[in-house]
Amino acid sequence: MSASPSQRLKELGIRLPPPPKPAGTYSSVVVDGATAWVSGQIVLQEGAILHPGLVDRDLSPDLAKEVARRAALQALGALAAELGTLDRVQRVVRVAVYVASVPTFTRHHEVGNGATELLVSIFGDAGRPARVSMGVSALPLNAPVEVEMLVALTEA
Amino acid sequence: MSASPSQRLKELGIRLPPPPKPAGTYSSVVVDGATAWVSGQIVLQEGAILHPGLVDRDLSPDLAKEVARRAALQALGALAAELGTLDRVQRVVRVAVYVASVPTFTRHHEVGNGATELLVSIFGDAGRPARVSMGVSALPLNAPVEVEMLVALTEA
Amino acid sequence: MSASPSQRLKELGIRLPPPPKPAGTYSSVVVDGATAWVSGQIVLQEGAILHPGLVDRDLSPDLAKEVARRAALQALGALAAELGTLDRVQRVVRVAVYVASVPTFTRHHEVGNGATELLVSIFGDAGRPARVSMGVSALPLNAPVEVEMLVALTEA
Repeated sequence: MSASPSQRLKELGIRLPPPPKPAGTYSSVVVDGATAWVSGQIVLQEGAILHPGLVDRDLSPDLAKEVARRAALQALGALAAELGTLDRVQRVVRVAVYVASVPTFTRHHEVGNGATELLVSIFGDAGRPARVSMGVSALPLNAPVEVEMLVALTEA
Repeated sequence: MSASPSQRLKELGIRLPPPPKPAGTYSSVVVDGATAWVSGQIVLQEGAILHPGLVDRDLSPDLAKEVARRAALQALGALAAELGTLDRVQRVVRVAVYVASVPTFTRHHEVGNGATELLVSIFGDAGRPARVSMGVSALPLNAPVEVEMLVALTEA
Repeated sequence: MSASPSQRLKELGIRLPPPPKPAGTYSSVVVDGATAWVSGQIVLQEGAILHPGLVDRDLSPDLAKEVARRAALQALGALAAELGTLDRVQRVVRVAVYVASVPTFTRHHEVGNGATELLVSIFGDAGRPARVSMGVSALPLNAPVEVEMLVALTEA
């Protein structure tokens, strides 16, 4: 994959969303040396949570996978706003996917693929992170999915 | 904010709690290069969990926010005991706030503010971390809140 | 503890399992500089989840502790496959133990000891990480325990 991430975004017709405003006392992105930590992202649309509730009760796993993709895209929007470009992303190191779901739902990894398939489409193998996926009892504002991301950067 | 963290603690009238004893096979703090990882902190008082149970069933969100504050303070106590001072804290990089709560509770971010508002009061903007907050099914010893912290350090 | 990790494994009669195949779009291990991130590990045996279900309902805490040990061992198998050896492990920095469990179960830390007691037996004090343990609503494929690991490495 020789195209830069910003070129790949264009090729894929993907526009980064504007950076989210933190819903509390935290930073959307903290850069520590060559590492960027992106806060857990939940997806709002026109001020309301997109597809709220518990997965496999209030929304389908397929919708949850799409929300995971949107949350990852939002993480990239936050990162681009902080760094001025996505082209400093050397490697997506870790992605955590928290899925608000009923105890009978056990396909959290498929929801998580919504986030990481997007990352691979943009960054190639550098977008294939270590990952953890799990079911949680609920998420802030009744979001169905929260995605946290850790990224290794090249020099500014 | 020109005062050092230890000066700010004095100004705020905050005394750090003694470092917690690990309740199992782990270290309270691991320093790896210029980064300190603080284990998940739950709050005990006189040997018993402070405000045990699930948030929004056994304790109010306001009490849970106060427990989050206490857990963050305990993390700082653990850090100070390990480093000999809080003045080596360059930046609080990441805070994770795990809230034991019923599936209908969706204000985990407000509970999390209990931890990060304290950090900002002590460290200023350097205390505004990347953050993730979520509802979990339960926590060790029936604690209502667990707070994990990652800190960037200046040279010893 | 003067023996190398690979010598300790022999002394303890422990054979590392083969590296797991990622069950989705992620990497089992990502090495970023001197740090290795190991994806959340769940334990399968002959293609099926070992002791599936929720802890304290479908399996005992003791069995869950054994699954945590197996998951940690699997993380080491993934690490050894990536690095060619465990002898580059300088320090286990952080372990996260996610326990799928009913809301009345509150001994997640004892389940977590299954993972970290193994690490201490192999790496000595270098295997005593910062740790976070919690109860989650469910895990991928109905696994009872998922273990995530962060390791500091010596130079190659």
